[in-house]
Amino acid sequence: MILLEERIQKDGIVKEGDVLKVDSFLNHQMDVSLFAQMGAEFKRLFKDKPINKILTIEASGIGIACVVAESFNCPVVFAKKTASINLDGDVYTSKVISFTKKREYDIIVSKKFLTKDDHILIIDDFLANGCAVMGLIDLINAAGATVEGVGIAIEKGFQPGGQMIRDKGIQLESLAIVDGMDPATGRITFRH
Amino acid sequence: MILLEERIQKDGIVKEGDVLKVDSFLNHQMDVSLFAQMGAEFKRLFKDKPINKILTIEASGIGIACVVAESFNCPVVFAKKTASINLDGDVYTSKVISFTKKREYDIIVSKKFLTKDDHILIIDDFLANGCAVMGLIDLINAAGATVEGVGIAIEKGFQPGGQMIRDKGIQLESLAIVDGMDPATGRITFRH
Repeated sequence: MILLEERIQKDGIVKEGDVLKVDSFLNHQMDVSLFAQMGAEFKRLFKDKPINKILTIEASGIGIACVVAESFNCPVVFAKKTASINLDGDVYTSKVISFTKKREYDIIVSKKFLTKDDHILIIDDFLANGCAVMGLIDLINAAGATVEGVGIAIEKGFQPGGQMIRDKGIQLESLAIVDGMDPATGRITFRH
Repeated sequence: MILLEERIQKDGIVKEGDVLKVDSFLNHQMDVSLFAQMGAEFKRLFKDKPINKILTIEASGIGIACVVAESFNCPVVFAKKTASINLDGDVYTSKVISFTKKREYDIIVSKKFLTKDDHILIIDDFLANGCAVMGLIDLINAAGATVEGVGIAIEKGFQPGGQMIRDKGIQLESLAIVDGMDPATGRITFRH
């Protein structure tokens, strides 16, 4: 998606350690009009799939997922990263290792909101090692629901998550795939 | 907002300890078409305010804030609850005590995304003791930005947060104010 690539090149900041900061429009400050255009693009890419629910993970996936869901006219469910007293014990859980925070955590979704009749589109802001998405797929499989696809804003193509998901035969659509970043020049190379 | 009150009465679950579970449509599974209608209502209620940015707090505020922001044609910034290596050190911080999780935490916003020129609408899903909103107001004040108003989906009118914010002269609009809940019957009383 050229619009997103241009925005990443213009406002993204490349840092040492394969860090791409896009916090001015994607995951701290959020450009919801960009999200709406991403929603239209995901709708086009997944137009043949009978999607009735979007699944994401807190926190930065939620905003994109909710705006994208307006294009699909369906609800969003977000997986939570820690247990809360407001959640019933009746949950699906999986373990995820965070690349950015360098720690392991549990993700949970209430069993009420994932059922065998659900056809799920997973939406997230970043795909790198794929741990978050694999955790979400675990939850969907535990519920007996169907993974219809995975929609990602930015995939780091030089990390293994994308290949891992495509190897499972799942339709993965990343609106921008970054194949390389140079912290010295700030130049970002996209896959086309 | 009658539509929201009806939804709370229909799908909300009242539990002991003043807990109102609305996780089927507001803060775990999220009905984004309801959020869009809430956005239109907030736009009507704050139509005279020069709002250029919406501020919320992770996680459950983000979805509502992003859909509401489409009605205001402005970006969203969300305050984060823990430090991440993806955030610069250059942040505004405040302390918040969580009612539901019974713990204290820091909230942070990058200084890049709150400035003295910003006119902020705070959006959140729940208002009870008001600690989260007061923390967000702290961040806005630290930046020298202007609080134009606070928009809440559900206010617990029997807890002190609403009064505390109104006493500061801030325009607070809660789309549903719950004055009482009976866990035995499930009946919810709204303020009109």
